[in-house]
Amino acid sequence: MSSIYGRNIRLSLFGQSHSEAIGMTLDGIPSGIRVDRERLQHFLNRRAPGRNAWSTSRREEDIPEFLCGLKGDITCGAPLTAVIRNRNARSADYSEFIVKPRPGHADYTAELRYHGYQDPAGGGHFSGRLTAPICVAGGILLQELERNGIRVYARILRIGDISDDSPFLNPVPDQAFPVVDETAAMEMQKCVQAAKDRGDSVGGVVECVLEGMPGGLGDPIFDGVESRFAQILFAIPAVKGLEFGSGFSAAQMFGSAHNDPFCIRDDGRIGTVTNHAGGILGGITNGMPIIFRLAFKPTPSISVPQQTVNLQTMTEETLCVQGRHDPCIVPRAVPVVEAAAALAAYDLLLEVQR
Amino acid sequence: MSSIYGRNIRLSLFGQSHSEAIGMTLDGIPSGIRVDRERLQHFLNRRAPGRNAWSTSRREEDIPEFLCGLKGDITCGAPLTAVIRNRNARSADYSEFIVKPRPGHADYTAELRYHGYQDPAGGGHFSGRLTAPICVAGGILLQELERNGIRVYARILRIGDISDDSPFLNPVPDQAFPVVDETAAMEMQKCVQAAKDRGDSVGGVVECVLEGMPGGLGDPIFDGVESRFAQILFAIPAVKGLEFGSGFSAAQMFGSAHNDPFCIRDDGRIGTVTNHAGGILGGITNGMPIIFRLAFKPTPSISVPQQTVNLQTMTEETLCVQGRHDPCIVPRAVPVVEAAAALAAYDLLLEVQR
Amino acid sequence: MSSIYGRNIRLSLFGQSHSEAIGMTLDGIPSGIRVDRERLQHFLNRRAPGRNAWSTSRREEDIPEFLCGLKGDITCGAPLTAVIRNRNARSADYSEFIVKPRPGHADYTAELRYHGYQDPAGGGHFSGRLTAPICVAGGILLQELERNGIRVYARILRIGDISDDSPFLNPVPDQAFPVVDETAAMEMQKCVQAAKDRGDSVGGVVECVLEGMPGGLGDPIFDGVESRFAQILFAIPAVKGLEFGSGFSAAQMFGSAHNDPFCIRDDGRIGTVTNHAGGILGGITNGMPIIFRLAFKPTPSISVPQQTVNLQTMTEETLCVQGRHDPCIVPRAVPVVEAAAALAAYDLLLEVQR
Amino acid sequence: MSSIYGRNIRLSLFGQSHSEAIGMTLDGIPSGIRVDRERLQHFLNRRAPGRNAWSTSRREEDIPEFLCGLKGDITCGAPLTAVIRNRNARSADYSEFIVKPRPGHADYTAELRYHGYQDPAGGGHFSGRLTAPICVAGGILLQELERNGIRVYARILRIGDISDDSPFLNPVPDQAFPVVDETAAMEMQKCVQAAKDRGDSVGGVVECVLEGMPGGLGDPIFDGVESRFAQILFAIPAVKGLEFGSGFSAAQMFGSAHNDPFCIRDDGRIGTVTNHAGGILGGITNGMPIIFRLAFKPTPSISVPQQTVNLQTMTEETLCVQGRHDPCIVPRAVPVVEAAAALAAYDLLLEVQR
Repeated sequence: MSSIYGRNIRLSLFGQSHSEAIGMTLDGIPSGIRVDRERLQHFLNRRAPGRNAWSTSRREEDIPEFLCGLKGDITCGAPLTAVIRNRNARSADYSEFIVKPRPGHADYTAELRYHGYQDPAGGGHFSGRLTAPICVAGGILLQELERNGIRVYARILRIGDISDDSPFLNPVPDQAFPVVDETAAMEMQKCVQAAKDRGDSVGGVVECVLEGMPGGLGDPIFDGVESRFAQILFAIPAVKGLEFGSGFSAAQMFGSAHNDPFCIRDDGRIGTVTNHAGGILGGITNGMPIIFRLAFKPTPSISVPQQTVNLQTMTEETLCVQGRHDPCIVPRAVPVVEAAAALAAYDLLLEVQR
Repeated sequence: MSSIYGRNIRLSLFGQSHSEAIGMTLDGIPSGIRVDRERLQHFLNRRAPGRNAWSTSRREEDIPEFLCGLKGDITCGAPLTAVIRNRNARSADYSEFIVKPRPGHADYTAELRYHGYQDPAGGGHFSGRLTAPICVAGGILLQELERNGIRVYARILRIGDISDDSPFLNPVPDQAFPVVDETAAMEMQKCVQAAKDRGDSVGGVVECVLEGMPGGLGDPIFDGVESRFAQILFAIPAVKGLEFGSGFSAAQMFGSAHNDPFCIRDDGRIGTVTNHAGGILGGITNGMPIIFRLAFKPTPSISVPQQTVNLQTMTEETLCVQGRHDPCIVPRAVPVVEAAAALAAYDLLLEVQR
Repeated sequence: MSSIYGRNIRLSLFGQSHSEAIGMTLDGIPSGIRVDRERLQHFLNRRAPGRNAWSTSRREEDIPEFLCGLKGDITCGAPLTAVIRNRNARSADYSEFIVKPRPGHADYTAELRYHGYQDPAGGGHFSGRLTAPICVAGGILLQELERNGIRVYARILRIGDISDDSPFLNPVPDQAFPVVDETAAMEMQKCVQAAKDRGDSVGGVVECVLEGMPGGLGDPIFDGVESRFAQILFAIPAVKGLEFGSGFSAAQMFGSAHNDPFCIRDDGRIGTVTNHAGGILGGITNGMPIIFRLAFKPTPSISVPQQTVNLQTMTEETLCVQGRHDPCIVPRAVPVVEAAAALAAYDLLLEVQR
Repeated sequence: MSSIYGRNIRLSLFGQSHSEAIGMTLDGIPSGIRVDRERLQHFLNRRAPGRNAWSTSRREEDIPEFLCGLKGDITCGAPLTAVIRNRNARSADYSEFIVKPRPGHADYTAELRYHGYQDPAGGGHFSGRLTAPICVAGGILLQELERNGIRVYARILRIGDISDDSPFLNPVPDQAFPVVDETAAMEMQKCVQAAKDRGDSVGGVVECVLEGMPGGLGDPIFDGVESRFAQILFAIPAVKGLEFGSGFSAAQMFGSAHNDPFCIRDDGRIGTVTNHAGGILGGITNGMPIIFRLAFKPTPSISVPQQTVNLQTMTEETLCVQGRHDPCIVPRAVPVVEAAAALAAYDLLLEVQR
């Protein structure tokens, strides 16, 4: 089952970048959940392409059509399916890459996996376009989480060699380029523009916070909160690293500094003075905010000449990739990270009563 | 399903640190796989406690008893179950922690999840002791992977602020403290000893390589190789971060430097000049070595005084933890990482014929 | 996960009887499978309503639109999604049944499960209409099974008190009313017509055969062939019973008569003289034809007055149901049974190489 | 996953008839469930062999050893594992059947599935002995269901050509041979004895009732109550048929007679006048008793000469099977059916809060 996620809800993704449509089915979603379509569309627009300098010029409206699962705007308990038609597709751009796989792309591994039958157009099922239906599902659940007092918000922590270490306690107002420190934001945008001008791309780091998750969610060992989040977060294209709480810096710490002392919080509830655990101990939530960071590689779509291998002649060749691409995927990835986190969080939440 | 892993094989872990026994069942393991018990025991001894300065003084033989699934030393196709009896247990040490949860431990989250019914002795089901059955299962599969030309080996990359950046191309001879650079190894051991002398603990990073994995394994989106590995790797106690290939450093790179150029290798097969992808593109293996790194937090078991909350009186108190603990879990975690990687790799491999 | 089936392929169904569309996603379907759309449509027409005396007068073309998963007519390895638009819907017919549940229908249990949010129109997600996407998925796999030398065909064994005990060795020519013995067929149709004239309905039994399934498929205990088939066969609306091979008559037999003696068949391969086992021993196929029978209750949609309870007033009332219904679902169920069997068989077949 | 059952709890079975031990792990069982070991043992004794004329003379005490998952007699939330040692095993009896498979047994299909590596002793993993751990798990859950006001009880409905059609409203006092009508019971026992005297065996039907299950449990389509029960019920060795409520007799009924009219029951709650639905409509419980019947084939172990094929010489031969066997498995199957039903029911119940 390659494109299905969840234990209590089941998200099934389908579609290729240039197929008739892409979409998703949310199976097992409880009845009685309201879908605010306007807010959902606003959320989807944060991910939609073609809206600014650091995004591909391929423009798609990304308006979901709900085929079933709703009665009016309320879920009826049946699987919820929404599709997005693909309109602005240029398949001609991609015919070459079956023979000459693009470095950093899935062209070559798709060939190994699907034996020539894969759909190369726009990256097929591997395309970042598949993150649109993730945002449809996640956007609906973000609304429901908010009704349950749970806030999920992410920010750009780093692009290239520019990082923003300001504290992150609230959603960032500028949703198109969500960086806390405005000076850092400007530097980052310069960095992206410079890469674009060179026909190059650049990577970055996204940080996400989930506030208000109840304690006691998750299971030890293989179904721990980290494992559940990791499965969907590593499904986001270009993600190469994931850390919770102190993450890799924990490796350099001593226990006396890393252990989060328990305390009585102002609201009288139990919490921890610090949150190196990122809200998770033994795979189970402790009631503190869940915090994680995702490393995104630079998008592999660049126009500078690269070396590849011609799979027919089995000779090394130079490849020059044209087409429309993001010089930096990170800004558009932010809502995708929020959506994926919402899916993992809501799936967990459905176990709370047990 | 909190303690079951795998799609084609199903590993089920059971046991608490101080229960009669701990163990595992491997369901769906094919028939005809030979178990070299001597080599398996040697592998288990690498993880077993009580063997050196940086390990807990709790000594367990960790000799697995196979209850079923074998005919002689060959799997018969039925579920393979092995148990390890717990002998050297001192439950008295732990009674206190139901009321006064230890910072950094799962005492508090276990209370939230199991409502007072959890078994606190030795950390119960959350104990690092549960990695022993992971090593029994993984140790068997490591033997089978080797028969298929696949090598899995890990090393200590960092402990505290000492790292070893030497290239990692082969298993490290010293399996008790597997570091490539001997000077770095000595520095790391000093760091661990210093922490131990202070009643403190220290974290680290483990790097693992899988050589010889065929290309074309894995699926796009939610069942990608990263997602499958992540589920089991984050199940290893104390893991807070995971990165594949270039990982978090990819965030600072440009596409022109990060994309791995395809090439014809000396053996005439297709490969890549660099391996920033860590052997995975679009969630599918490309035939290059799979490389990942795991960040381990310092073990929370320390004897310096710490602040906690008394759950009965709801007052903040100072806690001094006695008992037998590892000042640094990283050396003993190395075989666990190899075992977990073998489980994920073998589970993937069972799909190769499809 | 209420509407997902399969271990190796994953069939996800979605849609309500009167929603925009109904459809299915086949996830994990291998690449390279050809879809003969003309043959598929012919197969779907066998199930489609409104074509004869014993079928509802609701007429739907049931032409699937493939949204993704194909390159031309060949699967590309990505999830395959097809939708069927609902056109000839009359929702007005159903508004009453939220308050006055129809006996034998899911109106009342849907209320208990979905708390008033369910979509009652046309039975919502419970409607027999959901068997159309089962036939789209199964119809595609029936073609692929045939390419692998596997034939799947079913017949009407009984309607009401008329049964046809003739041997069943080949598909029945008359696919609209597939009964081997023509006299029995005429009697059955009379029985259906008589029920229809009374505003009543009648039940029946369908028998299905799978020829050419290799031996050695399936697993002991919970993933036996019977268990795998049972999960999808009991998902067909109105099915109340399932038996394999000798089934319930085995209860009246002695072992000496029931055990199938092994023999060398004319083709030199091992078989059994009789086939009381229905091709399955210990949950695993033995190479003989798989044979099963399904009992269908009379469709609950009848127009004679019935007693129900008004959920608002909590009083017993008499209900008279209008609307368009099948007096006997059995003839249209035959292709659905073949499709469901094909899904179970193909899912099994993907494990053959293991 | 061949030997794992459940969505919310996960039952993992392991062991072969003559391996060191057989056993089970219940993963995901909630904390706080009390295990009355005495009542559990009494329940296990109903299934244990060697206690009367119609049971194999192989005598096993079947006393489970709990390895983990309990704190005292209360579940602690960790996986619950219990093992039963195999003592009275005579492996010599079985060596012959690898070459000469017994008709009606899994000898031949095990050979096809496991390629000569299978453990033939006592039927290996296919043995009815594996129903003992099912009874350990189910016996624990039967106690918990009872605490929740749910009663599960089964009876022998038929053996050979003798059936007992008396109404079944309460557990039968004689648990060793649970038949309501004592005259029928005597006739059945004569039938079993006669078969035994001839070295033959005989089949039968078991009927099971679940009282007190709340309405609204289950899901439409593939996770309907029938599908969930069917997966575990068909896992019981020798089961060839399953029907719910009116089952196969529904095929002969008209809708006007089959539809269960809704009514207000004496307790003021909604029920149905009849219960042809067997407590399930649209895959969801309606609050009426769940009723199902299972057809058991005659146990294939008979001592009369039978025809088989010698897999080495590929010639037809006559086989005479010795060894200790049940002439009729049905009486000992009754508690197994109750245990399996309890597992399915409890797994369902864990979804009730959703």
